[in-house]
Amino acid sequence: MNALPPIIRILKAQIQRNSDSNDSRPASYLCSMYNTNDTIIALSTPPGAGAISIIRLSGNDALTICNNIFKGKDLEKVESHTLHFGKIFDPTTQEIIDEVVASVFKHPHSYTGEHVVEISCHGSSYIVKEIMNLLLHNGARMANAGEFTMRAFLHGKMDLTQAEAVADLIASESKSSHKVAMQQMKGGISAEISLLRQDLIDFASLIELELDFGEEDVEFADRKKLKELVEQILEVIKRLKASFTLGNAIKTGIQTVIAGKPNAGKSTLLNMLLQEDRAIVSEIEGTTRDTIEEILNIEGIRFRLVDTAGIRDAHDKIEGIGIARTMEKIQTSAILLYIFDVSRTTSEHLHEELDAILKDQNNDTKLLCIANKMDLNPNLNIETYIDGEVVTKENIIPVSARNNMNIGYLQEKLLAMATDGQELGDHAIVSSLRHYEALKKCEENLVAVIDGLMGGVSGDFIAMDIRQALHYLGEITGQISSEDLLESIFTRFCIGK
Amino acid sequence: MNALPPIIRILKAQIQRNSDSNDSRPASYLCSMYNTNDTIIALSTPPGAGAISIIRLSGNDALTICNNIFKGKDLEKVESHTLHFGKIFDPTTQEIIDEVVASVFKHPHSYTGEHVVEISCHGSSYIVKEIMNLLLHNGARMANAGEFTMRAFLHGKMDLTQAEAVADLIASESKSSHKVAMQQMKGGISAEISLLRQDLIDFASLIELELDFGEEDVEFADRKKLKELVEQILEVIKRLKASFTLGNAIKTGIQTVIAGKPNAGKSTLLNMLLQEDRAIVSEIEGTTRDTIEEILNIEGIRFRLVDTAGIRDAHDKIEGIGIARTMEKIQTSAILLYIFDVSRTTSEHLHEELDAILKDQNNDTKLLCIANKMDLNPNLNIETYIDGEVVTKENIIPVSARNNMNIGYLQEKLLAMATDGQELGDHAIVSSLRHYEALKKCEENLVAVIDGLMGGVSGDFIAMDIRQALHYLGEITGQISSEDLLESIFTRFCIGK
Repeated sequence: MNALPPIIRILKAQIQRNSDSNDSRPASYLCSMYNTNDTIIALSTPPGAGAISIIRLSGNDALTICNNIFKGKDLEKVESHTLHFGKIFDPTTQEIIDEVVASVFKHPHSYTGEHVVEISCHGSSYIVKEIMNLLLHNGARMANAGEFTMRAFLHGKMDLTQAEAVADLIASESKSSHKVAMQQMKGGISAEISLLRQDLIDFASLIELELDFGEEDVEFADRKKLKELVEQILEVIKRLKASFTLGNAIKTGIQTVIAGKPNAGKSTLLNMLLQEDRAIVSEIEGTTRDTIEEILNIEGIRFRLVDTAGIRDAHDKIEGIGIARTMEKIQTSAILLYIFDVSRTTSEHLHEELDAILKDQNNDTKLLCIANKMDLNPNLNIETYIDGEVVTKENIIPVSARNNMNIGYLQEKLLAMATDGQELGDHAIVSSLRHYEALKKCEENLVAVIDGLMGGVSGDFIAMDIRQALHYLGEITGQISSEDLLESIFTRFCIGK
Repeated sequence: MNALPPIIRILKAQIQRNSDSNDSRPASYLCSMYNTNDTIIALSTPPGAGAISIIRLSGNDALTICNNIFKGKDLEKVESHTLHFGKIFDPTTQEIIDEVVASVFKHPHSYTGEHVVEISCHGSSYIVKEIMNLLLHNGARMANAGEFTMRAFLHGKMDLTQAEAVADLIASESKSSHKVAMQQMKGGISAEISLLRQDLIDFASLIELELDFGEEDVEFADRKKLKELVEQILEVIKRLKASFTLGNAIKTGIQTVIAGKPNAGKSTLLNMLLQEDRAIVSEIEGTTRDTIEEILNIEGIRFRLVDTAGIRDAHDKIEGIGIARTMEKIQTSAILLYIFDVSRTTSEHLHEELDAILKDQNNDTKLLCIANKMDLNPNLNIETYIDGEVVTKENIIPVSARNNMNIGYLQEKLLAMATDGQELGDHAIVSSLRHYEALKKCEENLVAVIDGLMGGVSGDFIAMDIRQALHYLGEITGQISSEDLLESIFTRFCIGK
C-alpha cells in the first residue's frame, strides 16, 4: 500500500544518524533489520517437541539457499504457492537429516513480499537445530524478533498499525481482544486516520504555497473551511481517544485490587465473583513472586484480581508493612475493591480505613466500596456510610457475598467502570498506548491550529502546527517512522513472525 | 507397500473379539481409531504462543469440512500440493477468526493417504481453540495420539517399524539417536526382516502342502535346504538382537549411578567428565523429585549420570537410608561407577563397601571401580584391590580426577560398556524393545524348528513352529498386528502426528 515512503524516511533517518557523531547508541539491531538484501530464517512454531515444526526463510536467496540442502525438486523452478515433499540433506556429508514438506511462496506474493520458503519438518529439537545450522551455513542468518513482519511493513504489505495488530493477534486470549486485533489488522484505525490525514495534507500544501508567495499576501487556503475540517478531525480523534479505555481494558485487562480487614469477606467475595460467572479461573504468577492473580472474565474483559493481605489493624499500625504493600498494589491498579463488614464497621471506621489507604494515592485508581454482610444487618441504611466525596451513592454497593446478593450488580458496576460504559461494536477501537499518545499529541497540535486560526496567526505558524499534527498521525500508520519507533514495536514480537 | 493385509487382519481380530463375550475391555480407543471414515483434526505444532500454529485435518471430508469455514477458494477444486491464502470464518455469525494459509494434499498423495488439509494460522491459543471448535462443529473429530501416523500405516503408506520410527525421530535428541530413527524410517530393519520372512513363507507353504497329502508320505520341502535357511535366518536375528545393546543405548541413554563415600571425589569426577568432553550439561528432573541427572554425551551416547548422597558410614549404618536409596538407584541403572579414595581406602574396606552395596543386587548392573586420588599415592599398586571376582583388571580404573588423569580412558571404558564395543555404521540397528522381544521369540521358534528337523519331527509340528516364527517377524513390521499392539505403539505418539 505504501511501499516506498517508509523506506525512504528510514534511510534518511539513518544517514542523519550516521552523520551525527554525538549519537553513540549501537545501531546494529536496526542496521541488520533494515538490510533486506539478506535471507533470514527462524523457527516459526513454538519451541518444544510436537508433530510438526516450521522453519521459515525469507529473502532474495531463500529459494537458492533451500535448494542447496533440499533433495526432491528445484524450488526455483516450481510455481508459487505449491508444496513439495523432499529430503533435507547435509551437502558436505550427504547425510539425510529429515523428510520434509517445503511450502514455496514467490516474491511478491508472500507474507513478507520476498521469496518465502516454509520447511515443515518433524518436530524434534535436534532436527530443527540441524536444519537451521545447514541454512545458516548456506548463507541465511537468524531473524530478529518480528523481522518477518517488519519486512512485510517495509515492502508495503501492511501498515504499522496492521503490523502491530499481528503481535496483538498472537497474544489475544479472549474473544474481545481477538476482535479488536482482527479489526486493527483489517485496517480499522488506519482507514479512519488516512482519511483525516489526506485532507490535512491538502490544506497544509495550500498554506505552504502561500508562504512561497509570502510577499504577495495571498490566501489559497480557505481559513473557514480549514477550521471546519480541523474541528471535524478533532471530533474523530476524541472518539478514537475515548475508545482507548475500552480498547486498553480489552487488550491488557484490568488490574483490580481487593483490600479490606481480615474477615471482611474478601475470599468469599472472590469466590462468588469467580464462580458466579463460571469465569475461567487460573493462577498467574505476577510480576513479583509473591503475588497470585485470579482472572475474572466479565463479558470478555479480563479483570486481574489481586488479593491483598488483610489489613490487620489500621488504627495502630497505620504505617505498617501490610498497608504499604497494599498501597503499592493500589498504585498500579485501575480499580480498588474495598470490602468491609457492615455488622462491625461504623461509618467513622470506614472513613478512617479508607483515608489510611488512600491518603498517599495520587493516581486515578477508581474506588468501589463493598458493604458486605448485609444479611446480618438487613435494616441497615447504607447511606450512613456516604460522605459524598470518598464514598458516594455511585461507588458503594451493598452485598451479601455469602448469599450471593447483588453480585451480578457488582459485576455490572465493575464492567462499567472498566469500560466507561462503552461497548465493543464495529467501529475502530484504539487499543495501543502508542496510538493513544500519538492521537493526544496530534490533538494538541490541532487545538493550536484552531487557536491560531482564531487569533489570526500567520500562515507559516499554522502550517507548522498542521505539519506537526500530520507527523503524529503518520506515526500511527507508519507513514512516518523512526528507528527507535520501529525497534520498540518489533522487538515486542516473537521470533519467527 | 502392504496396504490391505493389516486391515484385513485387524478387522478379523475385531470380529473375533466382538464374538468373544468374555472380553470386557473397552474397545472404544481402537474402534474409533480403526474407523477411518471420519475426519480427524489436531493441533500439530507444539502448544503455546508462536508465530504459526498448524491445525491438521485428515479424512474423506477434510476438504468439504474446511470449505465450510474457509473464505478464499473452493478447496475441493484446487490441485493437490497447493497453498491457499484465505480467511477462517464462523458460518453462523460470519465473524472472521483469522487470516490463514491452507495447504491441500489430496488422496492418496498425503501423509495419511487421505485428503489432508493443514491450516496455518496465527499462533494464538485463542485462535487455535476457535478454529478447532469450528471444525468440530462442522463434522470433524479430535484425533487420538498417533492417529495420523496410524492411518498412514493402515493405508499402507508405511509399515509398523517405520511408523514407530516417526515417534523416535520426533523424540531424537542426539546425532546418533536421530541416525538410528532415520535408518528405521527408511525401512532399515523392515528390509532385512521382509527378506527372511518371504523365504520362510515359501517353505512353510511347501510343508503345509505335504500335510494335505498326509496319507501319502511325500516331502515337497527339502529338509536340508530348510535347515540351511533357518540357520541363515538365525544368524541375521542374532546380529539384529546384538545390535539392540547399541540401539537401546542410543535411543534411551544409559542410566549411570555414581556412588562412593563423602570426599571420595564424586563431584570432581563428575565435573571432569562433563567438562572434559565439552558435554552438553543440563539438569533434568528425574522421575523422583529429588533426583537430579546430568547428561554426559560420549560419541552420541547419552549417559544419564545420577549422583547419590555420599555413603556416610558403611560400617555402622549399613542398612541406613542413604544406602537403601543408593541401592534403589543402582537397581534401575545399567552402570555403577563406584569411586573411592586410594589414599584412605584399604582393599579390605573397598570390598566391605562394595559388598554392602552389591549384596542385594540381582540385576545385571555393570560395575566400574574408580580408584581416585592416584596423584596422592603415585606408587600404589592398584592390583592390591583386585580380587578377580567383584573387582577385576578390567573394571578398575586408576584416575586422578583433580589432575584429569585417565579421564579419557574412563570415558572409553564407559562407552565400551554401554555399547558392548559396537559402533554405529550403516547396517540396520534394533532400537525398540518390542522388536527385540519379537526377535527373541522368533529365535526360540526357529531353534525349535532346527531341533525338530534334527529329531525327525513330523511336518505338521515343524510347520507350526515356522508359522509361529513368521508370526513374530510379521509383528515387527506390522504385517500381523493386534489391537493391543497397535494401541501400545500409537498411544506413545504425540497428538497431531
